[in-house]
Amino acid sequence: MTHDSAGRGRIIVFEGGEGSGKTTQLARLAASLDARGVRHVTLQEPGGTPLGREVRRVLLDPGSDVTPHAEALLFMASRAQLMDREIRPALVRGDVVLLDRFFLSTYAYQIAGHGLRETEVRSANAFATGGLVPDLTILLTFPAREGLARAATRTSSHDRIEAFGEDFHARVAAAFTTFAEVAWQTAHPECGPIVAVSGEGTAQDVSERVHAVVAERWPEFFEVALA
Amino acid sequence: MTHDSAGRGRIIVFEGGEGSGKTTQLARLAASLDARGVRHVTLQEPGGTPLGREVRRVLLDPGSDVTPHAEALLFMASRAQLMDREIRPALVRGDVVLLDRFFLSTYAYQIAGHGLRETEVRSANAFATGGLVPDLTILLTFPAREGLARAATRTSSHDRIEAFGEDFHARVAAAFTTFAEVAWQTAHPECGPIVAVSGEGTAQDVSERVHAVVAERWPEFFEVALA
Repeated sequence: MTHDSAGRGRIIVFEGGEGSGKTTQLARLAASLDARGVRHVTLQEPGGTPLGREVRRVLLDPGSDVTPHAEALLFMASRAQLMDREIRPALVRGDVVLLDRFFLSTYAYQIAGHGLRETEVRSANAFATGGLVPDLTILLTFPAREGLARAATRTSSHDRIEAFGEDFHARVAAAFTTFAEVAWQTAHPECGPIVAVSGEGTAQDVSERVHAVVAERWPEFFEVALA
Repeated sequence: MTHDSAGRGRIIVFEGGEGSGKTTQLARLAASLDARGVRHVTLQEPGGTPLGREVRRVLLDPGSDVTPHAEALLFMASRAQLMDREIRPALVRGDVVLLDRFFLSTYAYQIAGHGLRETEVRSANAFATGGLVPDLTILLTFPAREGLARAATRTSSHDRIEAFGEDFHARVAAAFTTFAEVAWQTAHPECGPIVAVSGEGTAQDVSERVHAVVAERWPEFFEVALA
């Protein structure tokens, strides 16, 4: 980590394949922090800033023509803007930043999915982030087949990325499975420490596991407020 | 050059500071090629593709909030799209590509102007271009003070980049002046060979100089068509 984290905020990233429940779990952790008066912000990639929302619209519009290299660079532009306008200021305020997707998604979609060169994408990410790294990446694991089925029930129309086809999404899902299997061995320094958490069972089951992981690292988040 | 240029198209880039006349000169060269039946396409950065025009709109809108890192990445996204959708297909067809701005503008605006790190911007450019390099960069030189005065007369309202202020634009202008002074000595491998051409005098004076530079390299462009 290149930011001085003593007395500062923390970045917690939620990652996982389609239907892994990461957005739900992020919201549940946010509610839990809220209940205990821990200041936090919830941000999404791409998005989270006006520029990010413009980029999101272009990236998801089924009518957009965007090449894989341009797609990766648009994601990075959104990430750079989010870093400078939302994440760094939140850390300076001492807030916890809960981030829906970050570098593992870049890896899964742009490198594994599109086949872009890892070294080049990592360089672009370093440029976008200025080397800032999350304090924790929670990787929700879920059998890819079930995740895709869960995700499919949510929508009947497809955005541009959903429409890339089965082969693409199989590569993305395989990447998330591999991260989960070797998360503690593999070097993904852009993600900070990665902890795989099973996404199976009810949302309540999963959020108890997430809570345990977060509370082990930062017990102060869940101490009973005495004031 | 990483593309095989034997029997293929050529990329000719026009660069220069504000008011240097590059857009006018590009159009005059295009007309000259037209008159001789040399197939060519004229492209602009950012822009040149539907995605590029979206990026251009965001980058120039005075109401946009875009950080320097995000700005550089948006330019690169537009460049990547232009490469894959317009420039490579044109080269395969054997067309001449006339390009209004390329890496010297990136250098002048993002590195000299905003102070972004040269190595990082060059990496992002290599990712965006896949290593494709112009066959010639024509750098139109013009005293910066006069160029800014010329440019100022063209518009009373300012786009987002024009509104960056005098210090920013002085750094950009100084960068173009430096390129012109040391163009033949400095390593800017992303630009291919750089030839500085004086932008002083009438548009006709300047286009005669441009013509001479192009004709020296590719006399076949200007041979009388016998067919």
